[in-house]
Amino acid sequence: MPMNSETAAAAGTGYVHGYSGREGQRLLDQASSLVELLHWDTAFPAGTVVLEAGCGVGAQTVTIAHASPHAQICSVDISEQSLQAARARVAEAALANVVFLQGNIFQLPFPPRTFDHVFVCFVLEHLRDPRAALASLKQLLKPGGTITVIEGDHGSTYFHPDSMDAHRAIQCLVDLQARGGGDALIGRKLYPLLVEAGFQAVTVSPRMVYVDASRPALVDGFTRKTFNAMVEGVRDDAIAAGLIDTATWDKGIRDLHRTTADDGVFCYTFFKAVATIPR
Amino acid sequence: MPMNSETAAAAGTGYVHGYSGREGQRLLDQASSLVELLHWDTAFPAGTVVLEAGCGVGAQTVTIAHASPHAQICSVDISEQSLQAARARVAEAALANVVFLQGNIFQLPFPPRTFDHVFVCFVLEHLRDPRAALASLKQLLKPGGTITVIEGDHGSTYFHPDSMDAHRAIQCLVDLQARGGGDALIGRKLYPLLVEAGFQAVTVSPRMVYVDASRPALVDGFTRKTFNAMVEGVRDDAIAAGLIDTATWDKGIRDLHRTTADDGVFCYTFFKAVATIPR
Repeated sequence: MPMNSETAAAAGTGYVHGYSGREGQRLLDQASSLVELLHWDTAFPAGTVVLEAGCGVGAQTVTIAHASPHAQICSVDISEQSLQAARARVAEAALANVVFLQGNIFQLPFPPRTFDHVFVCFVLEHLRDPRAALASLKQLLKPGGTITVIEGDHGSTYFHPDSMDAHRAIQCLVDLQARGGGDALIGRKLYPLLVEAGFQAVTVSPRMVYVDASRPALVDGFTRKTFNAMVEGVRDDAIAAGLIDTATWDKGIRDLHRTTADDGVFCYTFFKAVATIPR
Repeated sequence: MPMNSETAAAAGTGYVHGYSGREGQRLLDQASSLVELLHWDTAFPAGTVVLEAGCGVGAQTVTIAHASPHAQICSVDISEQSLQAARARVAEAALANVVFLQGNIFQLPFPPRTFDHVFVCFVLEHLRDPRAALASLKQLLKPGGTITVIEGDHGSTYFHPDSMDAHRAIQCLVDLQARGGGDALIGRKLYPLLVEAGFQAVTVSPRMVYVDASRPALVDGFTRKTFNAMVEGVRDDAIAAGLIDTATWDKGIRDLHRTTADDGVFCYTFFKAVATIPR
């Protein structure tokens, strides 16, 4: 689930979802509807020094800072524009335990062994070399330090009624992200990525979003305003790139919205991994 | 996930997985490795009269009877051969709260309003008209009675490393089941099926099986001995039906087993629904 802006310079390409205000709002909408699912078990003891690598517009920053008021959060993003939005968001929430810093995830201006915890959410999917990013972040952890990584996986998407055209539209997003050097199917790969980057005690917890008409907040907040809006956002790029024709695209999007009817069902899975480094 | 034998006469076709001893063992292997995931929240108060519709070889029967020792379980299956295996299994477990009965799920020899609860697990996927089956079972419930339905969904399968050939092999199973009148993608449809059959307060809980090398019991018990074995079981039928060529099949199966390596990941989701009828 692309919710972050770390990509751009790191991957040497444009951020696939752009930086418009509507996109920023979508990111915040998503976080508020998914916050319990993804973050109910994210909390840091008093005094923990946390690096949030790739904070984007602060969608997750507010949640983790609020949940751990006595931890010190250092939130970094490569986009100064995103950081401005994140700063405003944190100020609005009257949170005093966050500092922001502009920087590249591969060249952060911290000495080794600075942080107790690194928090990475919706960032790796946009990087050309996520394993190298994890290895780089690992150097910043104190001995015995821990990491949290959260990513989506567009290949986890299925729904009722099923629709080949809807899957084709989603595949356009996957293909565009791959062309930009990213990986929209990265969620399922967190375990091997963390193991290969040298982390230990890697534990992956899938967080499945199951949506039917009995859960109207998710129908609107997740299926309609997060997932479908995200796919719809790449319409022009997908058609311009020749990945799909207009008629198939429009049918695919209609079919995606069809899953929000009273007899529709929509499924998507995020993956949350925690791991540690040796003491 | 095909674990039941209700299909045969009801669908007017052969049971896609056959009735061999190896298949029976696979069903039991699956239940024992999935029992906590699927059934940790299945328990009935003392005195509850439960119909298990389509008990097969008793893989679930033992679990629910053990979890609810003071409930009375009436387990029905269309196959006398399966019932024999189920009786032996229940006797071996020294459970005294189960009675078995041979019968067709659409024509059960009970008066209306007989049961407090109906339990249906891995049955609907094999029926030509699952909605009619639910409507039929609904008549057997007392006012205020409840139902539990559990089904898999082969379209929920994804893995790392990804493989088109592995997906093709899985699709053979889906296609064969569809030719037999069944639906291997039924899990995602439980909500509309139950609503349309007239049930109320329908609540669906997805049960995702996430498998990586840190969970060796699931690698062996689920990925290898349950899912992969189930797909491998239709090899001859799939090739004979012209659904796939031998080389693609063999490559697909190899790729499925590749997901059990130290860097592999396998995902599958079951759906568990509970619902009620008016008082």
